[in-house]
Amino acid sequence: MSDPRFADLPTPCLLLDEAKMKRNIDRLAKHADALGVALRPHLKTTKSVEAARYVLKDGNGPATVSTLAEAEVFAAAGITDIVYAVGIGLNKLDRVLDLHRAGCRLTVLLDSVVQARAVAKASKDAGIAIPAMIEIDSDGHRSGLSPSDPDLIEVGRILHQDGAELAGVLCHAGESYSAVGKEAQSEYSEAERLAVVSAAEALREAGLPCPVVSVGSTPTAHAAKDLTGVTEMRAGVYVFFDLVMAGIDACRIDDIALSVLTTVIGHQPKHGWVMIDAGWMAMSRDRGTANQAVDQGYGLVCDEDGNVLPDQIVAQANQEHGIIALRHGSDGTMPDLPIGTRLRILPNHACATAAQHQRYHVIPETPGAPLMTWERFGGW
Amino acid sequence: MSDPRFADLPTPCLLLDEAKMKRNIDRLAKHADALGVALRPHLKTTKSVEAARYVLKDGNGPATVSTLAEAEVFAAAGITDIVYAVGIGLNKLDRVLDLHRAGCRLTVLLDSVVQARAVAKASKDAGIAIPAMIEIDSDGHRSGLSPSDPDLIEVGRILHQDGAELAGVLCHAGESYSAVGKEAQSEYSEAERLAVVSAAEALREAGLPCPVVSVGSTPTAHAAKDLTGVTEMRAGVYVFFDLVMAGIDACRIDDIALSVLTTVIGHQPKHGWVMIDAGWMAMSRDRGTANQAVDQGYGLVCDEDGNVLPDQIVAQANQEHGIIALRHGSDGTMPDLPIGTRLRILPNHACATAAQHQRYHVIPETPGAPLMTWERFGGW
Repeated sequence: MSDPRFADLPTPCLLLDEAKMKRNIDRLAKHADALGVALRPHLKTTKSVEAARYVLKDGNGPATVSTLAEAEVFAAAGITDIVYAVGIGLNKLDRVLDLHRAGCRLTVLLDSVVQARAVAKASKDAGIAIPAMIEIDSDGHRSGLSPSDPDLIEVGRILHQDGAELAGVLCHAGESYSAVGKEAQSEYSEAERLAVVSAAEALREAGLPCPVVSVGSTPTAHAAKDLTGVTEMRAGVYVFFDLVMAGIDACRIDDIALSVLTTVIGHQPKHGWVMIDAGWMAMSRDRGTANQAVDQGYGLVCDEDGNVLPDQIVAQANQEHGIIALRHGSDGTMPDLPIGTRLRILPNHACATAAQHQRYHVIPETPGAPLMTWERFGGW
Repeated sequence: MSDPRFADLPTPCLLLDEAKMKRNIDRLAKHADALGVALRPHLKTTKSVEAARYVLKDGNGPATVSTLAEAEVFAAAGITDIVYAVGIGLNKLDRVLDLHRAGCRLTVLLDSVVQARAVAKASKDAGIAIPAMIEIDSDGHRSGLSPSDPDLIEVGRILHQDGAELAGVLCHAGESYSAVGKEAQSEYSEAERLAVVSAAEALREAGLPCPVVSVGSTPTAHAAKDLTGVTEMRAGVYVFFDLVMAGIDACRIDDIALSVLTTVIGHQPKHGWVMIDAGWMAMSRDRGTANQAVDQGYGLVCDEDGNVLPDQIVAQANQEHGIIALRHGSDGTMPDLPIGTRLRILPNHACATAAQHQRYHVIPETPGAPLMTWERFGGW
């Protein structure tokens, strides 16, 4: 099969399957509803205003971002309730205030007295109470205070009393990305919940407010069974899914909505290699499946229609060359892929692969409808 | 020391040291002169018109590129002698012809009868003889015909007789990136030379022209001792250099002209971690030093002025979080790096790290002079 809509696309380029994306979005929205929590999708994966409209509940929020550039683009598009879920840099407070002045309620994240003092002072000086959440650590993955850390109350007090707004507590179980299967992931979810609920209780016992209690990662959001005490959950990569998520059973291969369209440019028969025009610049250098049970190389190969070619992976990548080979240990055979054949490559990590591209070519849910083009952005 | 010129830069961002870049450029230009070959720098590393002016001999060429997007941008900037050094996709010939019509002599690369026929036919149909080089393989790294492959003569004959222009032969010893030290690299250089010279002789013996005999990679270009029979050499990453190149002794750490400016955003004292706002989105996912003698994590940490902080590496990276820790096995101690401290991170792979950014902030050779901003581009 050859899709005539792809004939004019330059390769490599990014394809997005609208139907799969909608299915992924619906699934988590329903799960959040069933658990009785709000969903605050993370827009760092898509970085596209068009995609954000699908992801956000009423098309305008609430949302999570990973950079101020994202906050600025999405605020300009009318999204006014945004959590910037990376510890706030002291050099970024002027831009935070500018976003507030432009009508966006941007909530910052922090885990130290130094940051709390700076946010409180900037708030006081500007006459704008910057909402701030305290980051809580449940798994030793990166940032955040332990719920029992004495700094928690001090940070909360500074925010609440010195000019800022203590908006709540937030936790991200990044270690859940290495937990295989729903049972293991639900343990991380419960650890997330216990950490933030315990921190929220400690703040409230100290007479401080803690309206928002936020948890989330794609694996824990889907695996959560009970979120008592939690008010919202966050997830990002679930919109597209990817091979890393499939490798821990957070999705099926068939759920992956993002792929890279590529063209065969050569062969090295002596090695059993097929050369394509998607190298690491198109796929990213992410090798997130390298330590999983099934190593997908730089991506799993599908035909132009998205059907997986068994055991064919992008085994090696140079900047603009991908090398397709049989997975190590496979007893399959290489199919005949003549020069000029178009293929799709499923990515290890959707956030990383999408970031290498400037736009999505969207395959509409309606069969045969013309492709749509959605611009994406990067930067900080 | 705190450089006031950095105070207004958003972090993370890309810094480029003009003096080091010029030194790197001069060194290879002199070596090419001494060897009696032309230098055709690869612009895939810089992807910046301003940087290209420094790299190219007269500011306008000759040049090598890795994408048609690069060819189009550089052609529009007046660079008219470009080799597109990735096997030509049959879907890209219209854009190749458009570049010729716009006055750019774009040479394509191929290694098969199928491609040669398509290039010859496109040439004939358009009345434009597309120059094409035949890719030769010297080390089993990726594409290219072995010099003794019978297809070599057939490909050459098709190009020469059927409407295209047989421009020569080209080889890239990609395996040289794993060869440590000048002696080992010079063996790859000699293998490159032998492969292309032998292919050129075979073509000439068959009565075909072979005006250009091209070799190159950053390690082999610097290590080459004798290039008899070769007419030009190519290299790309030497303009900036990086930790991978330093790890194989192709440069010193002090030669690395590119770094990522970042800000400390937190600490995890129980782990000995310093959190920075440069994660893998700013550094890229490239872990090219992982298999070298010294694993530099996601980058080597320097103070704001570029002085290496011994044994401090970006040990882990999330999308927008970098985690600085002591190198495994180090008996050093973590310095005091308060929140707000600016640092520079040297990258594993300059091509990959630069590709994550939209511009260079250039530190001029003249001490204290204002920073320059050079835009860079991506895409295909």
